Amino acid sequence: MGNFADMTPGQELISAYWTAANARDWAVYSDLLADDVVYEAPQSGERVTGKAAYMRFNIEGFPGDWHLTVARVVGDDQGAASWIQMTDSDGTYPGLSFFDIIDGRIAKITDFWPQEYEPSGSRAHLAERFSL
Amino acid sequence: MGNFADMTPGQELISAYWTAANARDWAVYSDLLADDVVYEAPQSGERVTGKAAYMRFNIEGFPGDWHLTVARVVGDDQGAASWIQMTDSDGTYPGLSFFDIIDGRIAKITDFWPQEYEPSGSRAHLAERFSL
Repeated sequence: MGNFADMTPGQELISAYWTAANARDWAVYSDLLADDVVYEAPQSGERVTGKAAYMRFNIEGFPGDWHLTVARVVGDDQGAASWIQMTDSDGTYPGLSFFDIIDGRIAKITDFWPQEYEPSGSRAHLAERFSL
Repeated sequence: MGNFADMTPGQELISAYWTAANARDWAVYSDLLADDVVYEAPQSGERVTGKAAYMRFNIEGFPGDWHLTVARVVGDDQGAASWIQMTDSDGTYPGLSFFDIIDGRIAKITDFWPQEYEPSGSRAHLAERFSL
């Protein structure tokens, strides 16, 4: 991702979003969101509409002792994507998010939470195996 | 994603990569890859190193009648991310990829294939449900 000075405005915004989330700095977090922000998680079909509802979803919906690190942020002032590593009572696992950005604020978040799987046997001879 | 003229070099590269994959235009696809390209799928721990091995992985590893559409590409000339919708014998499902780009070619691909899940009951009252 390079150092902060090399970041695009979109990368700065998304990095600040995750820093605020990890710190539970909900005032800063809220300021980064558009008033009509929409959150969607396509895997579970969850959708949350509007800043007030999305703040409740975050503050009340995930009460455990989670923390996160940012693995990667790409994008520009119109859209971005991030890969975080989330640690909670289930262990450490990746979270992928796409962001729509309007006027410097996050207007839409689409979250994905992939799980481990075994590769198809038909291609097992075509790849090595590693663990993160 | 806007029209082609609005794309960054990174968005153009990744869009061309998926167009070539969907068309099985392996000559074009190969040209977009660095010689020492690395592919990783963290969920399954699969890793493929080098263009020749990665071409075999794609051509021989996924013999079925799949096709894909691009939902989203973000990024710039150093890194990008894409969200595709893949259709194969299992149905239609999302694929998320992060790309390292060096000198206009794809140097690293990190793929994620999220599955459906049920949201935690503790936050069920905090979100609507939708389906794509």
